[in-house]
Amino acid sequence: MAGLKEDPVLGIDGITIKEELKIVKPEIDKLRGDHPVLETVGEVIKGESLINNRSVIDKVREEGSCGQGERDMVPLTSNSIHRSGSRPQLDLSKAAIEGTFEERDPTILLPNQSDDISHLALDIGGSLIKLVYFSRHQDRLTNDKRKKTVKERFGISNGNRRSYPILGGRLHFVKFETSKINECLDFISSKQLHCGGMDSHCWHSETSPNGNALIKATGGGAYKFADLFKERLGISLDKEDEMDCLVAGANFLLKAIRHEAFTHMEGQKEFVQIDQNDLFPYLLVNIGSGVSMIKVDGDGKFERVSGTNVGGGTYWGLGRLLTKCKSFDELLELSQRGDNRTIDMLVGDIYGGMDYNKIGLSATTIASSFGKAISEKKELADYRPEDISLSLLRMISYNIGQISYLNALRFGLKRIFFGGFFIRGHAYTMDTISFAVHFWRGTSNVFAA
Amino acid sequence: MAGLKEDPVLGIDGITIKEELKIVKPEIDKLRGDHPVLETVGEVIKGESLINNRSVIDKVREEGSCGQGERDMVPLTSNSIHRSGSRPQLDLSKAAIEGTFEERDPTILLPNQSDDISHLALDIGGSLIKLVYFSRHQDRLTNDKRKKTVKERFGISNGNRRSYPILGGRLHFVKFETSKINECLDFISSKQLHCGGMDSHCWHSETSPNGNALIKATGGGAYKFADLFKERLGISLDKEDEMDCLVAGANFLLKAIRHEAFTHMEGQKEFVQIDQNDLFPYLLVNIGSGVSMIKVDGDGKFERVSGTNVGGGTYWGLGRLLTKCKSFDELLELSQRGDNRTIDMLVGDIYGGMDYNKIGLSATTIASSFGKAISEKKELADYRPEDISLSLLRMISYNIGQISYLNALRFGLKRIFFGGFFIRGHAYTMDTISFAVHFWRGTSNVFAA
Repeated sequence: MAGLKEDPVLGIDGITIKEELKIVKPEIDKLRGDHPVLETVGEVIKGESLINNRSVIDKVREEGSCGQGERDMVPLTSNSIHRSGSRPQLDLSKAAIEGTFEERDPTILLPNQSDDISHLALDIGGSLIKLVYFSRHQDRLTNDKRKKTVKERFGISNGNRRSYPILGGRLHFVKFETSKINECLDFISSKQLHCGGMDSHCWHSETSPNGNALIKATGGGAYKFADLFKERLGISLDKEDEMDCLVAGANFLLKAIRHEAFTHMEGQKEFVQIDQNDLFPYLLVNIGSGVSMIKVDGDGKFERVSGTNVGGGTYWGLGRLLTKCKSFDELLELSQRGDNRTIDMLVGDIYGGMDYNKIGLSATTIASSFGKAISEKKELADYRPEDISLSLLRMISYNIGQISYLNALRFGLKRIFFGGFFIRGHAYTMDTISFAVHFWRGTSNVFAA
Repeated sequence: MAGLKEDPVLGIDGITIKEELKIVKPEIDKLRGDHPVLETVGEVIKGESLINNRSVIDKVREEGSCGQGERDMVPLTSNSIHRSGSRPQLDLSKAAIEGTFEERDPTILLPNQSDDISHLALDIGGSLIKLVYFSRHQDRLTNDKRKKTVKERFGISNGNRRSYPILGGRLHFVKFETSKINECLDFISSKQLHCGGMDSHCWHSETSPNGNALIKATGGGAYKFADLFKERLGISLDKEDEMDCLVAGANFLLKAIRHEAFTHMEGQKEFVQIDQNDLFPYLLVNIGSGVSMIKVDGDGKFERVSGTNVGGGTYWGLGRLLTKCKSFDELLELSQRGDNRTIDMLVGDIYGGMDYNKIGLSATTIASSFGKAISEKKELADYRPEDISLSLLRMISYNIGQISYLNALRFGLKRIFFGGFFIRGHAYTMDTISFAVHFWRGTSNVFAA
């Protein structure tokens, strides 16, 4: 055990990234040329625009993260973009998230986006459909002078590419429950996203060999619902592997977005500056209905090494059965007012209030989740839904944290990045996962002493 | 990853030992002298009596393990017993379990036990109290001739030890729910176990400095209920650390009992012959209300390296809330008629019935336990309790199997032994844990290919 002290894995940070990861990949896939854009993004991190944007971020933080927050993105200068022919490119210069940091469905403003990009991409998971679409915007019309200045500044020349009357646009993120896929289809139809969106005059959709519009999609639903999309909207889904998307999205965000990653411990969120040269390898833990754990060694180099069937779907599913909550968010909200001691069996419950010092377990450690519910004196209705929700949340979060930690240890990975809808914007969930990682790391230390 | 192929850990067997482990330690502790009995038991495994007993076992197996089954124990010859002064010893020669292999509370017959041993020892856990007591028996009276023959055969001389009118006795195992501790106290009182039992004429109980009878006890309840035992029965509990007991009990059983360990895969139980010289190190996984995982390096040499709060108490607690079952056994019985596909989200549910081949997940793999229960169309009452019980059982068993496997991998341990009331006598539970260990081991192989 003494060897553990030198083990580099003990440096694991329970870092979380909250944005949807997979959704980025279909977009990227449409955008990149022969040389992937992702591989060079790291080069521009010291650019001037970063410093400018950093001051914006600092200002937002001083203002308490309320109101119109913005998050800086590393701009892609001309040097960083490998253009190939006329493939459209994503222009992240001056890009910013509109809305507060905690907002669930923020919009990403791309003020200098000149190229057309795909209007629509989908990630159809077991529980949720995540949809991203691009729109041109009218409300921040730039005059020709500013447009020229911006373009000169980033060294972008139009070359043989046509100019657009409007510069800039927004990426919108929308989610639907997979069981209500018709709502998603109706949404696409109402906004005409499948035929280029409201501003279709400037968009030429790709088409499949049979003439249908071709839309990038990932997740199991890209297979399951392919026929439905064809029948209802005449869309052919261009399927991307979900692990490919997940990893490409994570690498993109970690490299391109300055404050994408953060730690969350005891209610404190701390942004982490990732050294682009020291990013790989890392463990990517995506918490959806189930949980996938992926060892990422580089761009496109990864392996799904583990996972668990106890994930977000388990929390939501068991939570619905036990509390009659109508939504995932309602269940999560309940947990914040819960007291799990009424339902979990703690070490102190077994040891008469004492710690079990010899093996380093305090009286407040959960010995058995739901262990007190074996009591014959109480039925389901006698427990507060708040307590049940918190007990469930801790059970599942701790478990994910523990299995993640063990896998990081197994492969000697210094960092774990957590993502997915189960934790997205949920401070307490992130806290409990971090607690678990640190608890198990701490246990090793205790036993090495 | 290629290195994994050579990894000795890939030889892990999901071996299970079903008897209560901890209960043995207080007995042993009373019995052993300056040199622990355990350290030398391995020497006699090739003895003649073993072969004789083996034929008994084979006969029982041929008869389909029904009726009066017996399990052979390695006899302790005079060479293997380090006697010190007048400390009483456990005589396992001709010892046998009375009842079938699957019986939940078998009695251990000790036909040649001449020394007095402690009448009572307790393991008071979070959910269950496990009690063992010794009784002399009248129903298999041996005549003087046989007694002499047996004693001569094993080289046991009475020396200065007094003879008893009756040779032999039985160890009885009884369990109570910890929440009904008064039933346990009443049982002890009714059988006068706290003052030497019905045959107290041949037993002299140890006493504490304050004159109370001193009874060995382990588990958190030995601390929590110490005052209650003193008040109600005048018993002082002589506390033993539960991890010490667990490991000593496991080592004792693995060495002394020939068919203590077995594998359980796809409904098939296979006894495993443990090479006494290749027993250590191993991972001991004790599944009670919670789960402890202990790396055992030798007699008295161990470390609790991990555990999980998702254990037997979780199955029972959540199961009670969801199904209104009145007992753990009823809940388990239900699971055998269950179909978890109605409530778990399988890979095929997400991928439209297809496997997710790229990462080696078949359509029938559980992607998210209880993931289908997020459906708004069904309430708790719409699900069959049988299906809920099976889904819960798989969720918890797979999870224990996975975390056990990861810990075995982490410490390079070839064998995992599972024990505790959650699996004791429960073939299906053992099967699911074995499945999980093999599933994750298999996953590594897949990815090494």
